[in-house]
Amino acid sequence: MTGKSMHVASSAYQYPLLIKQLWHTTLMQAPDQEIVYRDIRRLTYRRLRERVGRLASGLASLGVGAGDTVGVLDWDSNRFLEAYFAVPMMGAVLQTVNVRLSPEQIAYTINHGGASVLLVNDDFVPMLEGITKQLPRVKLLILMSDRVPPQTGGLTLAGEYEDLLAGASTGHDFPDFDENTIATTFYTTGTSGPPKGVSFSHRQLVLHSLAEMAFLGAAAKQGRFCRDDVYMPITPMFHAHAWGLPWTATLAGVKQVYPGRYDPAFLLKLIKTEGVTFTHCVPTLLQRLLGAATAANTDLSGLKMVIGGSELPTALARQALALGVDVFAGYGMSESAPLLCLAQVRSTDLTGDSEKQTSIRTKAGLAAPLVDLRLVDANLSEVPADGKSRGEIVVRAPWLTQGYVDNAEASERLWAGGYMHTDDIGVVEPDGYLRIVDRIKDVIKTGGEWVSSLQIEDLLSQCQSVSEAAVIGVKDDQWGERPLALVVRDRRTGADVTDAQLKAHLKAFADAGVISKYGIPDKILFVESLPKTSVGKFDKKQLREEYEKI
Amino acid sequence: MTGKSMHVASSAYQYPLLIKQLWHTTLMQAPDQEIVYRDIRRLTYRRLRERVGRLASGLASLGVGAGDTVGVLDWDSNRFLEAYFAVPMMGAVLQTVNVRLSPEQIAYTINHGGASVLLVNDDFVPMLEGITKQLPRVKLLILMSDRVPPQTGGLTLAGEYEDLLAGASTGHDFPDFDENTIATTFYTTGTSGPPKGVSFSHRQLVLHSLAEMAFLGAAAKQGRFCRDDVYMPITPMFHAHAWGLPWTATLAGVKQVYPGRYDPAFLLKLIKTEGVTFTHCVPTLLQRLLGAATAANTDLSGLKMVIGGSELPTALARQALALGVDVFAGYGMSESAPLLCLAQVRSTDLTGDSEKQTSIRTKAGLAAPLVDLRLVDANLSEVPADGKSRGEIVVRAPWLTQGYVDNAEASERLWAGGYMHTDDIGVVEPDGYLRIVDRIKDVIKTGGEWVSSLQIEDLLSQCQSVSEAAVIGVKDDQWGERPLALVVRDRRTGADVTDAQLKAHLKAFADAGVISKYGIPDKILFVESLPKTSVGKFDKKQLREEYEKI
Repeated sequence: MTGKSMHVASSAYQYPLLIKQLWHTTLMQAPDQEIVYRDIRRLTYRRLRERVGRLASGLASLGVGAGDTVGVLDWDSNRFLEAYFAVPMMGAVLQTVNVRLSPEQIAYTINHGGASVLLVNDDFVPMLEGITKQLPRVKLLILMSDRVPPQTGGLTLAGEYEDLLAGASTGHDFPDFDENTIATTFYTTGTSGPPKGVSFSHRQLVLHSLAEMAFLGAAAKQGRFCRDDVYMPITPMFHAHAWGLPWTATLAGVKQVYPGRYDPAFLLKLIKTEGVTFTHCVPTLLQRLLGAATAANTDLSGLKMVIGGSELPTALARQALALGVDVFAGYGMSESAPLLCLAQVRSTDLTGDSEKQTSIRTKAGLAAPLVDLRLVDANLSEVPADGKSRGEIVVRAPWLTQGYVDNAEASERLWAGGYMHTDDIGVVEPDGYLRIVDRIKDVIKTGGEWVSSLQIEDLLSQCQSVSEAAVIGVKDDQWGERPLALVVRDRRTGADVTDAQLKAHLKAFADAGVISKYGIPDKILFVESLPKTSVGKFDKKQLREEYEKI
Repeated sequence: MTGKSMHVASSAYQYPLLIKQLWHTTLMQAPDQEIVYRDIRRLTYRRLRERVGRLASGLASLGVGAGDTVGVLDWDSNRFLEAYFAVPMMGAVLQTVNVRLSPEQIAYTINHGGASVLLVNDDFVPMLEGITKQLPRVKLLILMSDRVPPQTGGLTLAGEYEDLLAGASTGHDFPDFDENTIATTFYTTGTSGPPKGVSFSHRQLVLHSLAEMAFLGAAAKQGRFCRDDVYMPITPMFHAHAWGLPWTATLAGVKQVYPGRYDPAFLLKLIKTEGVTFTHCVPTLLQRLLGAATAANTDLSGLKMVIGGSELPTALARQALALGVDVFAGYGMSESAPLLCLAQVRSTDLTGDSEKQTSIRTKAGLAAPLVDLRLVDANLSEVPADGKSRGEIVVRAPWLTQGYVDNAEASERLWAGGYMHTDDIGVVEPDGYLRIVDRIKDVIKTGGEWVSSLQIEDLLSQCQSVSEAAVIGVKDDQWGERPLALVVRDRRTGADVTDAQLKAHLKAFADAGVISKYGIPDKILFVESLPKTSVGKFDKKQLREEYEKI
């Protein structure tokens, strides 16, 4: 029975996974559900969909078509939501421009992304005037504004957004096309080098929406998102698709609220007046919101909030919970569209121990459906999910960027070994939660193991006669890398700590199983001082350049 | 900006939608969750996945490989669940054999589906002995049994299921392959002709699982399925994938209970002892269950139940609700994998009026995510969703069968005009619920409209001097079809009702807007009697043959 070929379905009636397909059930079931923009505009899904048609017709009348890239520079608005649909549904690429970057970086990303059309909130007109000469590929500027009249500066405009829609037909024909067509692109800024572009196809974004809806719906009690929720983003729509929730919320047919530029007091007002129950933001914004809520004596009970972007600190989580916010962490990155994990609390953990709950809520969380998440050592061999073994988090999922735009070298590193590398070190606990323990730039790969430089530094600095210690990895033919410690002696103690003493100190921790024996540096160099970055951290880049050859 | 080609993603790191991908998150998060088979076997997901590996290794050791078709004849069991995964994951096709058909039909479906291997519950050994000579393509029989020793009859066996697993390795390598590879096939019996085979690819079943999980999770209160539920099928696993829920439940990582052959008293016992909260069945089985529950004075509060297969009668729904069953209808068919709609009750309709709730619960329901469901007239033009306009329900979704196995003519009819035809007539109410009002075989397509023959028959039979009336469509060059009425006069009244009187009677209803004016037959023939089927319905097939030429 071997040697038979597999039966492969004909594609006669295949249904391509296109962003336009997210509309079917919502238009049938929730056409009158509301979409609210600040205190400025109230729409329904029926009208929103008409405006999506008008935007596409209007852009088409200006010559925009499949294959073009349309950049949007706006705060969170119904207009941005309209562009989330209209631009990809035309077969064009939506570039969500990060307006928080420097003007030079904004010009770089627009040029690199290839946008020929920009939809621009007039808040950014002064900035744009300064870089307009650096944007030779941009042919059309369309202004968006909440002011009367809009601020136009000296820019040459192809039109104003509302005028364009008013003059266009609702009946734009959105054809089927290849589901692998690129729908969006945006730029992520790393620690070094220019911003890197990621891109996502229709198929990827439809699967991301469906999996996100399934994952949020599967939660029994904590961490749910359902048809009765009211959604508002507080992660900008130019950042990793605002967690993809504008699409997911549309697919679920829920009420949506768009808050414009973030102002904590106004956000709190919208949460109360519009009955917002589900949102997401970064820790710093949560901090500001909690401050405003405390000042205004606002009760935030009933507000569910996913925290992403960086780790949710325990103290902040406690503070949020005390104010009634049902806060929990999410884990993802620009490269992953972004959803990978959510720290939903299981029903069995919801009772009793609030410290245990807080500890769960601050983890990276449970992996979303279809996410193939593994921990691997430096040789890409899987390490066990035993709550102890550390490994780099690598993933496969149906919605990960296929690489960086026009950057083959970085793309190859991103996907080394066929899995996408997160550059994070984690452990998977026996109850299935992922916990992040390190950034890969802070670890040293030696003898097939990950050694945390931060941990070795911490142990060294506990020695009485050590003022500070930095640990870097230096290349080694046999071990891949070996840790090198650079130690500043504490002159005040008078003691002249030695290389051997420090190694013995570390060996005691290795013998106790606290660190790997590979974590004991072969070489310890005593230096007068250590270079620091502007925020006071060791400048490891400079240290590596200086000591790489030793 | 026209003439640019679209940006299509490279497929370097594409993630094929394969059934094996449903395992990732469950093995990470719920490895110790239970899978229960009657009072016979308790497994965990970890062990179930090992058994899936063993089944694949065992089958491979017998020469089974990609492209082969493996038939299963079993009641609902963990073995069937193992085959739901192992067979498609090997690249082979799982044929779920309907054991309720006649032996001749079973032989027909096995031959037509091309199964070369059968996994057979020994309950079917006597039946199989009778048809074994009609199955020349079957090379291997593997017995499954809950008896010691199994009943083998005179069959030549390649092995016993548990022996096969015990001797096989857990570490079968399941490679990636084309997501459009066929994963399953099964046969649906119509009103005429031999059973027709449908088939589904990996991509389709993964998307069905994800959309089903999202749809069931989106419900705020009524009609939910979440991580805390305990699932048990009461629709056989050989019928339309048991609503796809064995895969969806595995993806969600919930406890699952498999009841074997259905016995109402034993089903009730399992529901109670295992804490089952979510199931699905057909109306006749619900009736039997409710009877058994009433007899045993069993409270069924907390049991959610989707009713499919045929319409959920209002009286039965009321009876179920009175016993605490959270009952609601689902709509789908073999050709649609099967999920299309679920009659979830919105939170706003859950309070107060129980009659309104019952009416919602008995509708076909709301459409699942990504389902493009339309009502069309006889010319395939869309009719409005206004709660009044009737049209044939046609659908597109990412999981519909691409046609019938080796039956080009029926496949073409199924997909006429690029939409899949359900052969049902429905209305979509303004609140977005689909309601089925007719079967297409009972309607007449005339002048671009659907006319219900049942409605015309009903109106005719309301005339005092009419004993019975049947209405059929006869071909018409101008109108497509025209209704022809065949009337049996009521001799007891003595009145000799005329053609003109009956037409005038119908015209009054047409003028009042109750029926279309096209519904008034051009010809009314008076006959002595009307042929009936064995269940007492008019034999329309015979009538059409007899009167087609008139």
